[in-house]
Amino acid sequence: MSGVSREKPIIATVIGDPGGIGPEVCVKALADGALGRMAHHLLIGDLEAIRVAATASGLNVRLRQIARPDEAASSDGAIAVLDPGNLAPGIWQVGQPSAASGRAVLAWIRLAEQLGRDGLIDGWIMAPVDSTSLKLSGGVDTLDDLQPPGTYLLRISQNLRIVPITEHISISDVPASVTREAVSQLLALVSKAFARWGVAAVRIGVAGLNPHAMGTEEVAEIAPAVAEARDSGLSVEGPISPDAIFRQAIEGRFDVVLSMYHDQGQIALKTAAFEGACTIYIGLNYVHLTVPHGSAMDIAGKGIAQPSSMTAAMRMATSLCLGYGFVDDHG
Amino acid sequence: MSGVSREKPIIATVIGDPGGIGPEVCVKALADGALGRMAHHLLIGDLEAIRVAATASGLNVRLRQIARPDEAASSDGAIAVLDPGNLAPGIWQVGQPSAASGRAVLAWIRLAEQLGRDGLIDGWIMAPVDSTSLKLSGGVDTLDDLQPPGTYLLRISQNLRIVPITEHISISDVPASVTREAVSQLLALVSKAFARWGVAAVRIGVAGLNPHAMGTEEVAEIAPAVAEARDSGLSVEGPISPDAIFRQAIEGRFDVVLSMYHDQGQIALKTAAFEGACTIYIGLNYVHLTVPHGSAMDIAGKGIAQPSSMTAAMRMATSLCLGYGFVDDHG
Repeated sequence: MSGVSREKPIIATVIGDPGGIGPEVCVKALADGALGRMAHHLLIGDLEAIRVAATASGLNVRLRQIARPDEAASSDGAIAVLDPGNLAPGIWQVGQPSAASGRAVLAWIRLAEQLGRDGLIDGWIMAPVDSTSLKLSGGVDTLDDLQPPGTYLLRISQNLRIVPITEHISISDVPASVTREAVSQLLALVSKAFARWGVAAVRIGVAGLNPHAMGTEEVAEIAPAVAEARDSGLSVEGPISPDAIFRQAIEGRFDVVLSMYHDQGQIALKTAAFEGACTIYIGLNYVHLTVPHGSAMDIAGKGIAQPSSMTAAMRMATSLCLGYGFVDDHG
Repeated sequence: MSGVSREKPIIATVIGDPGGIGPEVCVKALADGALGRMAHHLLIGDLEAIRVAATASGLNVRLRQIARPDEAASSDGAIAVLDPGNLAPGIWQVGQPSAASGRAVLAWIRLAEQLGRDGLIDGWIMAPVDSTSLKLSGGVDTLDDLQPPGTYLLRISQNLRIVPITEHISISDVPASVTREAVSQLLALVSKAFARWGVAAVRIGVAGLNPHAMGTEEVAEIAPAVAEARDSGLSVEGPISPDAIFRQAIEGRFDVVLSMYHDQGQIALKTAAFEGACTIYIGLNYVHLTVPHGSAMDIAGKGIAQPSSMTAAMRMATSLCLGYGFVDDHG
């Protein structure tokens, strides 16, 4: 991974919808400079939106516009901002979704993706976008369209880490998607990603599809994929009863659980109700995280948004870029 | 319900597999007589197995064999035992499954069912059976066969109460089982049962089937059943996103959640990992509970089994028979 070749990784954060709390939590997280000890941080977004957020938060921070990500290394106590200048002043406002904001956010996302792909940054964090702005922009139909093709979503809350084979598909389409190939491919991607992030011999638990993992898909699809992965030297167990595996993970038996459909893992994560749950993409050559809250237009501009999730995401991204493993204090 | 017409309800407990910890937790739960203040309790099972369990537990209790359930009302400080005499001495032993034990347990279960149906008892509790004994007996293939036809399993752990439309069927068969008729029928049974148990205006949450409750079954099947139930005066909400509804129930928004398949609710219950989770049958004219632990042959006869789940089940059965509602301390 490119990050470990540099002294400190370069981590970008797209400020999210300029009308939401994204700019505010970004400047609050970076204001005291503590995160700069381990990584060079920069924000991608509208300089003016960031300035407004800093003022509304009563923060006395300096902002420095940069032209290239590596200039973040010499930002000298200021918060580095990469602003492609694509958000015209006056056509958006704090607390309101708008087509202009949606278009700008999409362009910042594409920029971050390109910088990541080309190794010019080591990772990037997505601050909260706004689905109304994005729909108004005409650029995407749903937030699902933002997911890069070929990637999987690893959701993390404390020590519960879950990655499903599929996201928003109907239950009736789930059984056909549980194939030996799909399980094998995800096992390989997960072990590779975790190794790069610093979890050398990742212990993977694979959920079954059916009650007590006793169905045809377990025998025909899941078990062969697990056996093949074990033969290749991975530490994999499964298929395990879906109603038991998540509790086992919480108790420390697995570093990550492969779930067979969206709700299998999401019911476990949301019912356990740990504070915060960030999402990390699997299948990219750079680190990419999103924070677990929305754009919260109703409290934007009031200076009251809490930056703890953003701070945690920045710490997590830093640790993964350095190959130091997962940070436990997330959320 | 017949129970409220008597001064105290009559509650039977089938001792479960005589080789397991069932007899022991039964006598321990009834030993101090406290449970007798609100109900007349009797045990159904082998008198000798109960005597052996009492001795192994170091308990100085009197056992009194009765011929009919109502004699439990005059047991005078002794533990009343209804023993149909169907377990021959010497062909079973503590700590071992056996065909004889399995056959005896099945006969006790049939007896308790008949006493319940005929109104001679107001409720009964199933102590732990042993699947090996039952299979050896040849009477049933799986524990699923013990479920009376037309009934549903309400699982309870603290304030999380969940009843699924189906139990152990494959995920591929789930969508076809989510019909307007099935949801309507279960809504009616649940509201009737809860009313009888003392929860007058039960608040029911209905889970969706698909991610975020946004699929075809939600529109075509679940929503019409919910609308119909609301029109008939029930307090029902749904379909609600499956990954959100169980947390809402824990937070007190619903008295019970209807889940669309086994694992949907079981993942929530087992991941939340509250202590103990008893099961109550919906769709019977008497109260029927099972305790949340197994026969634990490995510790049977040692006097170390904890009776807390059995005590809680006996309290819960008493409260439901009296129409006093659910007991919060269960488990």
